[in-house]
Amino acid sequence: MDSISRLLKPRSVAVIGASADPTKTAGRPVAYLKKLGFTGDIFPINPKVDEIDGLKCYPDVASLPSVPDVGIVLLGAERAHLAVRDLASRGCAAAIVLASGYTETGEEGALRQTQLMQAAGKMRILGPNTIGLVNLTDNIMLSATGALEMDHFPVGSIGVVSQSGGIMGSLLSRAAARGIGLSKLISTSNEVDLELSDFIEHLADDPATKVIALYIETVRNPEKFRQACLKAAQAGKPVVAFKIGRSEAGARAAVSHTGAMAGADRMYDALFKQVGVIRAQTFADLLDIPAALATGRKLRGNRIAILTSTGGAGTLVSDDLGIANFDTPAPDEATAAALRALNSGTEAVLDRNPIDVTLAGLRPDLLRGAIDALLASPTYDALVIVVGSSSLAKPELMAGAIQECLPNSDKPVFAYISPHAPAVGKLLTERGVPSYPAAESITAAFSAMRHATEFKPSSSPVTQLSSENAEGLPGGSLDEAQAKQLFTKFGVPCAAERIVHTPEQAHAAAVELGGRVVLKILSSEITHKSDVGGVAVGVTPDTMVAKMAAMTKEVQSNTGKLPEGFLVQEMVSGGTELILGMHRDSLGTAILLGMGGVTAELFKDTTMRLLPAEGGLSPDDALSMAKISKHGLC
Amino acid sequence: MDSISRLLKPRSVAVIGASADPTKTAGRPVAYLKKLGFTGDIFPINPKVDEIDGLKCYPDVASLPSVPDVGIVLLGAERAHLAVRDLASRGCAAAIVLASGYTETGEEGALRQTQLMQAAGKMRILGPNTIGLVNLTDNIMLSATGALEMDHFPVGSIGVVSQSGGIMGSLLSRAAARGIGLSKLISTSNEVDLELSDFIEHLADDPATKVIALYIETVRNPEKFRQACLKAAQAGKPVVAFKIGRSEAGARAAVSHTGAMAGADRMYDALFKQVGVIRAQTFADLLDIPAALATGRKLRGNRIAILTSTGGAGTLVSDDLGIANFDTPAPDEATAAALRALNSGTEAVLDRNPIDVTLAGLRPDLLRGAIDALLASPTYDALVIVVGSSSLAKPELMAGAIQECLPNSDKPVFAYISPHAPAVGKLLTERGVPSYPAAESITAAFSAMRHATEFKPSSSPVTQLSSENAEGLPGGSLDEAQAKQLFTKFGVPCAAERIVHTPEQAHAAAVELGGRVVLKILSSEITHKSDVGGVAVGVTPDTMVAKMAAMTKEVQSNTGKLPEGFLVQEMVSGGTELILGMHRDSLGTAILLGMGGVTAELFKDTTMRLLPAEGGLSPDDALSMAKISKHGLC
Repeated sequence: MDSISRLLKPRSVAVIGASADPTKTAGRPVAYLKKLGFTGDIFPINPKVDEIDGLKCYPDVASLPSVPDVGIVLLGAERAHLAVRDLASRGCAAAIVLASGYTETGEEGALRQTQLMQAAGKMRILGPNTIGLVNLTDNIMLSATGALEMDHFPVGSIGVVSQSGGIMGSLLSRAAARGIGLSKLISTSNEVDLELSDFIEHLADDPATKVIALYIETVRNPEKFRQACLKAAQAGKPVVAFKIGRSEAGARAAVSHTGAMAGADRMYDALFKQVGVIRAQTFADLLDIPAALATGRKLRGNRIAILTSTGGAGTLVSDDLGIANFDTPAPDEATAAALRALNSGTEAVLDRNPIDVTLAGLRPDLLRGAIDALLASPTYDALVIVVGSSSLAKPELMAGAIQECLPNSDKPVFAYISPHAPAVGKLLTERGVPSYPAAESITAAFSAMRHATEFKPSSSPVTQLSSENAEGLPGGSLDEAQAKQLFTKFGVPCAAERIVHTPEQAHAAAVELGGRVVLKILSSEITHKSDVGGVAVGVTPDTMVAKMAAMTKEVQSNTGKLPEGFLVQEMVSGGTELILGMHRDSLGTAILLGMGGVTAELFKDTTMRLLPAEGGLSPDDALSMAKISKHGLC
Repeated sequence: MDSISRLLKPRSVAVIGASADPTKTAGRPVAYLKKLGFTGDIFPINPKVDEIDGLKCYPDVASLPSVPDVGIVLLGAERAHLAVRDLASRGCAAAIVLASGYTETGEEGALRQTQLMQAAGKMRILGPNTIGLVNLTDNIMLSATGALEMDHFPVGSIGVVSQSGGIMGSLLSRAAARGIGLSKLISTSNEVDLELSDFIEHLADDPATKVIALYIETVRNPEKFRQACLKAAQAGKPVVAFKIGRSEAGARAAVSHTGAMAGADRMYDALFKQVGVIRAQTFADLLDIPAALATGRKLRGNRIAILTSTGGAGTLVSDDLGIANFDTPAPDEATAAALRALNSGTEAVLDRNPIDVTLAGLRPDLLRGAIDALLASPTYDALVIVVGSSSLAKPELMAGAIQECLPNSDKPVFAYISPHAPAVGKLLTERGVPSYPAAESITAAFSAMRHATEFKPSSSPVTQLSSENAEGLPGGSLDEAQAKQLFTKFGVPCAAERIVHTPEQAHAAAVELGGRVVLKILSSEITHKSDVGGVAVGVTPDTMVAKMAAMTKEVQSNTGKLPEGFLVQEMVSGGTELILGMHRDSLGTAILLGMGGVTAELFKDTTMRLLPAEGGLSPDDALSMAKISKHGLC
């Protein structure tokens, strides 16, 4: 077994700095390991105590009767590295270091973090500043999170990796309350060694995990992340990520929190898009979407049936789905006939969608009949069942009816719970019908399913251009003429132009280029020329001299600078103005394509793709940038 | 007392069609009235039963010993009008009609609804198709909603009016679970008589109500709605509305549900903006925002302190606030010193925001000290307290500490509950600190507070233009020249132009208008002239004849139509292109202002204001249309 496998599924665990008081943080790991049924060896280490909760307590790592797979280090930052050194020297696979006080606190902390890494040698470290990990598949809790105070955790197929320990605890307790089953949860935090991508890769291989959920503050190694996500995609496991740092305030807070600088949020958007990561728009989506994907059901189209016993809530769901361009068509004639044949005895009008069968919630045969008819209908790709107040009296009965129908179809089935009824939602989710108290969650789940179906890793090969010589161009910022020389070398056609410095040269160039030309200032400093009066179109040889004098004056008055020269260009009209650019930050280098022209800065309708570490953008990726959605470029 | 007051606070209630079985819908109203402590007279009416739950049961309305204030009619649609007639003849103030099968089912139902209205005469009707109303202020439940199965409903100052009965039940149970106190809830549904605006107006006068929450499917009488909302604004009571029909699917579903055609969603946006109604973007916001406003605390600026014991969740809140342009500045020196003086004994770094005091959740003195310091700080306008897993062990202790600090400041204080801990959230909300499990809810609450502070009903007087004579213009669609004649009559300056039909006229017009002109086709049928080649700029007298011939050919080839004529116009450049338009639908007539030019249709960056029934747009309203937010026009 490799180290990460031993870390996630150890046969023996040492707990260094364990406390005999289970209400203290240092008392929790041993208590939780025992409470939730760990079957391997637990070695508490504390020189001041002989026994903790019936377990023999050892004075130090050296005294342990055998080599533990994992050591949980509960000591403070000033002593944690000593325990790490001892564990490493015994041949332990990995240490989980909970202490804070490292890079997140400044320079001195950063030194301590380096010291910690050196102490570990070849042993792997999770943390520091982590709350540990929870392996629900195998009932192994290597964590101090207070969320483990809960008594029952549904086991399922969603693996969670979080760069925040508090958030890991939040996801664990929220999922348990909702009946959403998880497989493993790992809090990576400062990532001195093991990081996000290590666990994505591991979970991509983990047979117990079908969907991977990520809470991201920063991606420290974009290329490794890319490879790990592509591996998950190839294994057919969707990856869903919620990333903070969407606003400047959030990015700043994240730096304080884990000590890492995040790149621009749009760069993450590009990265996620390219590797098929589904971006959760809200923190709630980070459970809501995986819960839907974990059913393994496939959304093959856009058409949703809504079965409701309460008109208002059905409308609410339908309205929200409509905003995201899902269709809610009326039943086809055969389906409507099947619904009518159920003879619900109400005045329900069954030729509409939402399909309103007021009493169905209280009569399981009706409910079963309606669900079967809708799932069998060629008109629908999925079903939402709206649970109203009237269904609350007999939740088991309703859940049973729904559950009986599920095996008859592989279309997605979700429930919207209109009143406050968490127990009903939990029951339905546990029975295979993810249930949501918000219409937006259902829309997000369907949108993610649509996305998961559409994503295919780009497989078109990258054409390497022959390496061109950029000699003869100065370093630093290029002016327009220099930039075009560079483009021309790579075969990009540009408008014919002449660089001029005198009115005479300008006049001659205008005559040569066809009579009506464009006059622009030439400057490596002024980037928005038209804003400062530095562009004139339709200039004729007659008006050139006057125009050039006027432009010089206007530009100088607007910028305090004299133009370095002028460009006279042939006048090109028609076509589509595009902007093509590059952006570099800690995440890498990205290509930007967007709507060009004078309003480019105003509308910022652009799209980005990150360049992989090796090779360029594939033709598929490049073409995908030119697709337009209703919100602009994709 | 007027009829609506008697309806909301009756001294006696007749229940027509009451069932002795409290598990049936018809058994609920009597059961709920008794269970929740109604102190007036209850008269069950059912000819087949002598007694219901210890109450004498009457065979019909005529036999009642006294005139009830309110009659709850539980009969089906085929007999409900008979009960309504009997109640009206006895002088009852209002009838609540629960039956469905009216306008929402089609023509026959519409006839029944008219019959119902006629049977009522001067008596008021709530419904039909309503689930009734709940008056928590006075402990009076006139409803069959299953949500009343819950045992305890916090009484508060939020009044709810819902056009869906199911949604009213949902709001009632969700608010109760969250500890959010409500005053009255009314489900208006089909609105054959009493409607949304009647209750907004009533709640504006109700001393127990401070905030009004609306669930809207359609506004049947926009002018009455406008007046009612302005009355609420003048009473200092914010109105928050969630309106469905944002998508076509939702609008269609709403029609099926309550039988009313909704206007375009953007028209509602305009209406809400003009009367200060805060639009809830999600259904959850419809409780989350009022819960914040009901505290009566005022947000005086943009700067939010985040006090957290769990770094990840603090970052999450900060990130989301940043997206909505709230600031989360670091503490000023005096505040940082006060925080340090608390001597929390941790390695917390207190010069940042989120302010991370890891152990504060377990030490109430620390928590109190930190809250007091942050609320007293001139750097902050509000405070968010993040509750992590570690605080869950002693929720009372934490709630107590927070509650003690509240009276020292009138700044808003909210809590974000990171783990699953509904009981903690409920406790804090009940103690005056609205608590949310989603960061987006906190942002929505602050945004609404900001909006509530900024709104002032327009008070600038409307200038009436003297009525102008539009004679001489044809009816129907005007061409460009005709439209400009109309504008000119009202003093709007237009570019000089000539209508021409022959090349000779066009040449002469070009010479007359200054040499370089614009040539356009003149057509009352073709609205997007430039799309079909019907506009040329910079045309000179020399090129006019050729250009006109080419344009005729191109327009004909693109549209199959010959231009009716041409316009030759002086060439105007510079300035800002705007679009000014009108839109009419069931909600009224709106003025539209937006970015003009050839990309107007592409970007649709426009804003609208509804014209009030009398008078025009005030100068304040008109000027407000020209304000630009980061998302475009306001």
